[in-house]
Amino acid sequence: MESFKILEIRQSVFASNDEEAAKLRAELKEKGVFLLNLMSSPGSGKTTTLTRTIEALKDEMKIGVMEADIDSDVDARTISAAGAKAIQLHTGGMCHLDAGMTRQGLEGLGTGDVELAILENVGNLVCPAEFDTGAVKNAMILSVPEGHDKPLKYPLMFQVCDVVLVNKMDVLPYFNFDLEKCTEYVKMRNPKAQVIPICAATGEGMDAWYGWLRREVRAWRGEETKKENGHE
Amino acid sequence: MESFKILEIRQSVFASNDEEAAKLRAELKEKGVFLLNLMSSPGSGKTTTLTRTIEALKDEMKIGVMEADIDSDVDARTISAAGAKAIQLHTGGMCHLDAGMTRQGLEGLGTGDVELAILENVGNLVCPAEFDTGAVKNAMILSVPEGHDKPLKYPLMFQVCDVVLVNKMDVLPYFNFDLEKCTEYVKMRNPKAQVIPICAATGEGMDAWYGWLRREVRAWRGEETKKENGHE
Repeated sequence: MESFKILEIRQSVFASNDEEAAKLRAELKEKGVFLLNLMSSPGSGKTTTLTRTIEALKDEMKIGVMEADIDSDVDARTISAAGAKAIQLHTGGMCHLDAGMTRQGLEGLGTGDVELAILENVGNLVCPAEFDTGAVKNAMILSVPEGHDKPLKYPLMFQVCDVVLVNKMDVLPYFNFDLEKCTEYVKMRNPKAQVIPICAATGEGMDAWYGWLRREVRAWRGEETKKENGHE
Repeated sequence: MESFKILEIRQSVFASNDEEAAKLRAELKEKGVFLLNLMSSPGSGKTTTLTRTIEALKDEMKIGVMEADIDSDVDARTISAAGAKAIQLHTGGMCHLDAGMTRQGLEGLGTGDVELAILENVGNLVCPAEFDTGAVKNAMILSVPEGHDKPLKYPLMFQVCDVVLVNKMDVLPYFNFDLEKCTEYVKMRNPKAQVIPICAATGEGMDAWYGWLRREVRAWRGEETKKENGHE
């Protein structure tokens, strides 16, 4: 049975979002909760990528997902069915989440037993990039049909992201998308950003993404990364 | 030779955007300028659709295009090369344009000889929907890879649009996109909205879009619509 609640998020009252975000991050560190902020355009495949990720990692770590959306609850329903603890956050028309709103979401979700919390931000390449949510890492999904020039047109989004998943690689033959150029443009905005080509629908490239996520969660929680090949 | 200028847009100072928008619309009526506000997600094909539209209609009417973008000038370059008067508007990180900002753009563009002015809004399904730009009609592009559920998730955008172009119809076989459902969801938000399936890259369905635009421009300018078959 799917089970999730819907939370109406209130506008934050804090003067400094950066301070509030740093405070939230420190609390998460203390609790051993890794918070990932996942951003993208509408329709780039955030929910499908999340569903796959939950299925792959749910036996290794307890996952909680906050689905931020303006109005609907279709995503929380899907995520809950995939086996994660889920909560739907209604932003009431607001185009982004800041740290105060994220804190409300985490409280609604309940992080007592959660090791990996994921915030699926509002589908938008502009506003979410401007607000630190308190997340440990920022990830974004750019899908092949959107075009490889997006880092030129939405600079801040690519600048703040630690990892860029290039999704829908299965339709590459039907689009004018140059992965090499895309990677070059991403690195121009943020030389440290990792670019991982994936196809959430077919599973292609997803192991590299799970590997990145696993390493980041373990490092944050102070756990040693197990050698994948068993020689320890 | 391409020729366009770049204008840095300042934040508006007007207390009521709705009033300012109504005032701008009245002025445009007086001048016989039809202003179209074109919105969409990043990468849905706004610029390609516009390029095609300019090529098809530029001998019938004088077209001017305002390319709103956060930082780059790639779109104004493309549009100018297609044969329209173009100006690039830099929004300085802002995620939308309101009526005051649109007025600055129109002044920068110069509307003396323009019959059809098009504002290519910032790629974003949330914020642009909240601000009346003063446009006569709102159009949006939803591309097939984004999914048919977008009217459920971005209600206001579909509510304010007079016409929805469903773009990239050529890749329909590769995506889980149901045009009938999409149309149903659009009508749920706005029963009067027209849905026109197109492929800007191949030209499929574009005649229906040109027909819509031609009729709207002529009606606004008080011109009689010529019968397409020549029996007048």
